[in-house]
Amino acid sequence: MAPDQPRRRADAERNTETILAAARGFLAQGTLPSMSEVSTASGVGRVTLYKHFATREVLLEAVVRRAIADTDDALSELSLDTGPVEDALKRLVRTSWPILDRHRKVRTVALTAIGHEALRAHHDPAFRHVDQLIARGQDTGAFRSDLSRAWLTAVFYAILHAAADEVDAGRLTSDAAADSLIQTLLATLRPARQRPTPKSS
Amino acid sequence: MAPDQPRRRADAERNTETILAAARGFLAQGTLPSMSEVSTASGVGRVTLYKHFATREVLLEAVVRRAIADTDDALSELSLDTGPVEDALKRLVRTSWPILDRHRKVRTVALTAIGHEALRAHHDPAFRHVDQLIARGQDTGAFRSDLSRAWLTAVFYAILHAAADEVDAGRLTSDAAADSLIQTLLATLRPARQRPTPKSS
Repeated sequence: MAPDQPRRRADAERNTETILAAARGFLAQGTLPSMSEVSTASGVGRVTLYKHFATREVLLEAVVRRAIADTDDALSELSLDTGPVEDALKRLVRTSWPILDRHRKVRTVALTAIGHEALRAHHDPAFRHVDQLIARGQDTGAFRSDLSRAWLTAVFYAILHAAADEVDAGRLTSDAAADSLIQTLLATLRPARQRPTPKSS
Repeated sequence: MAPDQPRRRADAERNTETILAAARGFLAQGTLPSMSEVSTASGVGRVTLYKHFATREVLLEAVVRRAIADTDDALSELSLDTGPVEDALKRLVRTSWPILDRHRKVRTVALTAIGHEALRAHHDPAFRHVDQLIARGQDTGAFRSDLSRAWLTAVFYAILHAAADEVDAGRLTSDAAADSLIQTLLATLRPARQRPTPKSS
């Protein structure tokens, strides 16, 4: 290893952070920046920028991956594998909603730019927590087992992001969202009631 | 009105239909076609094509609007405003799921090209049926009223489209989707149970 390699690596990491922060700044405003705009905003020259991120899509995915890694870190600290499952679900929503809410506009832009399935694939680290919680709920009988874990995880993901879309569209307040989410998610996850014969509608 | 105006209008309508059918053909394969490709596939010259649809986005939105108008027509025939609300919901899902399933790939491409909120806005005619059904359920006490109608409609939309995404990704079969949907939607819509003190997790 050349003697100046560690310093070069530190420079590279600093550049990466600066570029990501500049790109995130645009996305948080709901704007998809050009590579030129990122170069100008970050003060990192175009040649260096392209060396780190070959295309705007690669840069965008890196911003998304970082946001999800932050969510993953936050969820890892919640001890979701201990205590009553419903309480764990409430902790999970109360912690992940503000993070998702903060990243709402990044998500909207990313969804348009990289597509739903690619975005969902990036979410896998964060959704591991949901998946494990649903598995524990099904094992202990707290959650329904007549619907598959994969489906319940997909529904969980859809409802969580529906809240972000509703806040984005001005149809739901961010403050009200966490409670609505918890009630809605619990309704989908709890075991189905035995319903004898429906009396009326 | 010039004497040949009706014929011109008939020509224009036929061209529109031919163009829409060609564009839908690409989208149904999950491909976003260029205007040239639509021109070639439809046999409608580029000048005429651009006269009908000024941009590819306008064309894409017309395809989406047509698909949703078809759904709207199908749902209008279901008499969703009569009989037990839960039965009406089952009719709605059993009718709308196959249509949504058929349009899955169009939706995936459209989502990437025109964005989530624009796509949702186009759904308004079809979602009027959902909205009215939820309103009737809340009025009669069949559905929960502690969560807003707007939120429950958004959740309904999110869950329905989660099923399309799961089928698209190969994680759910199209045949199993309708039953999973009905059970999941009923769980979110039925009044919340009184839960005294949770015994355990």
